[in-house]
Amino acid sequence: LERWRVAVLPGDGIGPEVTAQAVRVLEAVAAHRGVALEVREGLIGGAAYDAVGRPLPDETLDLCRASDAVFLGAVGGPKWGALPADKRPEAALLGLRKALGLYANLRPVTPFDALLPASPLKSAYLAGANVLIVRELTGGLYFGEKRRTRTPEGEEEAVDTLVYRTSEIERVVRRAFELARGRRKRVTSVDKANVLESSRLWREVATRVAAEYPDVELEHLLVDAFAMQLILNPRRFDVVVTENLFGDILSDEAAVLTGSIGMLPSASLADGRFGLYEPVHGSAPDIAGEDRANPLAAILSVALMLRHTFGDEAAAAAVEDAVKRVLESGVRTIDLAEPGDPVVGTKAMGDRVVAAL
Amino acid sequence: LERWRVAVLPGDGIGPEVTAQAVRVLEAVAAHRGVALEVREGLIGGAAYDAVGRPLPDETLDLCRASDAVFLGAVGGPKWGALPADKRPEAALLGLRKALGLYANLRPVTPFDALLPASPLKSAYLAGANVLIVRELTGGLYFGEKRRTRTPEGEEEAVDTLVYRTSEIERVVRRAFELARGRRKRVTSVDKANVLESSRLWREVATRVAAEYPDVELEHLLVDAFAMQLILNPRRFDVVVTENLFGDILSDEAAVLTGSIGMLPSASLADGRFGLYEPVHGSAPDIAGEDRANPLAAILSVALMLRHTFGDEAAAAAVEDAVKRVLESGVRTIDLAEPGDPVVGTKAMGDRVVAAL
Ligand SMILES: CC(C)[C@H](C(=O)O)[C@@H](O)C(=O)O
Ligand SMILES: CC(C)[C@H](C(=O)O)[C@@H](O)C(=O)O
Repeated sequence: LERWRVAVLPGDGIGPEVTAQAVRVLEAVAAHRGVALEVREGLIGGAAYDAVGRPLPDETLDLCRASDAVFLGAVGGPKWGALPADKRPEAALLGLRKALGLYANLRPVTPFDALLPASPLKSAYLAGANVLIVRELTGGLYFGEKRRTRTPEGEEEAVDTLVYRTSEIERVVRRAFELARGRRKRVTSVDKANVLESSRLWREVATRVAAEYPDVELEHLLVDAFAMQLILNPRRFDVVVTENLFGDILSDEAAVLTGSIGMLPSASLADGRFGLYEPVHGSAPDIAGEDRANPLAAILSVALMLRHTFGDEAAAAAVEDAVKRVLESGVRTIDLAEPGDPVVGTKAMGDRVVAAL
Repeated sequence: LERWRVAVLPGDGIGPEVTAQAVRVLEAVAAHRGVALEVREGLIGGAAYDAVGRPLPDETLDLCRASDAVFLGAVGGPKWGALPADKRPEAALLGLRKALGLYANLRPVTPFDALLPASPLKSAYLAGANVLIVRELTGGLYFGEKRRTRTPEGEEEAVDTLVYRTSEIERVVRRAFELARGRRKRVTSVDKANVLESSRLWREVATRVAAEYPDVELEHLLVDAFAMQLILNPRRFDVVVTENLFGDILSDEAAVLTGSIGMLPSASLADGRFGLYEPVHGSAPDIAGEDRANPLAAILSVALMLRHTFGDEAAAAAVEDAVKRVLESGVRTIDLAEPGDPVVGTKAMGDRVVAAL
């Protein structure tokens, strides 16, 4: 592409601050590549609710649809906590995922050597770990029927429904296999097939898809066993594919491998090259506006955008390498700092990365 | 009680070996207490399937119902992996839980100082951690309606149903608060209230129950955040209460805090004092019959039986202390051994614990 059209949705809390640094990095890459960058901002989350009464305005959806990629900062905060579920900032995330068909959520977890001391795990368990979690993002309990009823005895009862159909499983598992081909050629499919019917279907479909990829190895693991093995033996895993809620839990668990959730980027992909990119961390309202947030997850999300939407692997790797070198130089945002480390703010960290590029 | 009636279900794989050591410890305690111990064995799991064609024979259920407590070794193995779901060994666990009303699954996670070197976590994060996970065991996705259908477009579709009613939540949450009163007086209720209707009901009921326990503090945490905090900051938690599938995942994750799943006991309690006690680990068919299994989780499960069914806190603490002293003496089963440690077998480890008592 000679023109990169990016919708930018800064959102709430520290969202705007980390987004600003991510956009600077994107601008630097575009300038270097001689590509025209068209950045257009939209409202999302609590900021959108305050402005127009809805967390996901139609104009924002239209803007996303008219773009090649979407960058999202973060949404949510106590200010909007008492609103009904469909007005809450988080509803905007679920709405975007469904409306834009973002069915494959990629969360690469790669500990940076320079941050190993900050991890709760012993370095010997971590060094060399490189796990890519692929979470199904538009199905399962998130989007199944929900209801509140009364039992014949007059008790309250709440019901959620976990539904998967073949095509939903197939496309995300296929994506995992495609990604594994460019990596260490192992896919771990995580389910609870000893209890759930949806997991039994998941396992059947994964096994069928695997037959199309004889060069990639497939293993099935139960979700409880995986939750343990992920910490005991992270190097054992390459690409991990799982359903929506398991992926939500396991990818946050995997965050501990990096030492800080402030380091984790994500990509949410639709068919083709369209994707939404966002840091995994939340809006951290307690430190918003104080220039204390770690912008590296946001910046690493830009690397994912370069890789998955713009197909520019060299630029993606350059951004990741710049982050690595900045960390090796010793500077840290407050969330990563050990006693004695030189601490910098959000903007200064962005400066360092841009300079290292 | 002057008579302890215990149903013993050794099961499959290493089940019989670890059960034998657990029963020896129970016998030693009963002898010391001057209590008549009535141990009666029953069939369960693959062993029961091989003998009578069903993993949970009626005679076994009757035996359990005629006892004060049940001890279970482990069930399952590849030999029975291809059977239909309702014949598989694991079906016996679900059947026992439902038939005996074992709604509160307790999994205490207490790292032993002597084992800190074996944990993947840095000792600084672990020392002093002491978490009691209380998992709801007879509701949720495990027991809701399941079905396989076809969509109008002819695709296969699988459905599981997550159902909770007020009384199911209330009794397990109340149990968690009662347990917290005897500990550090903090309850963390884990849910996914930003997405699931059943979690919103869970949160409402937990908040209501908390009002009856003004001396105990309640915090709500989302399951994804908890999965991370459990590793980053395990000392922050005292009693954790959660629904069935979340509890399955999180308690296996918590196992990493101890360095080995071979150390984790569990209790599954009904109303009153009746309970089923079992090690958290599985049947490990690969090492069955080799006198290599770690019997400490089984032995620590006997301590839980003494505490929760027989109300003998002194005896429970004595068993736990004996295990602690044996570990401090340096002996290890193979799963716990670091290079240079003196390694003992299943039976010899049982000898040491009985001797230390
Ligand atoms: C905010 C919440 C609805 C969301 C989710 O559960 O998907 C978040 O945890 C995430 O992982 O993006
Ligand atoms: C074997 C399986 C059905 C069981 C469960 O999921 O409850 C096991 O993992 C457990 O935790 O006891």
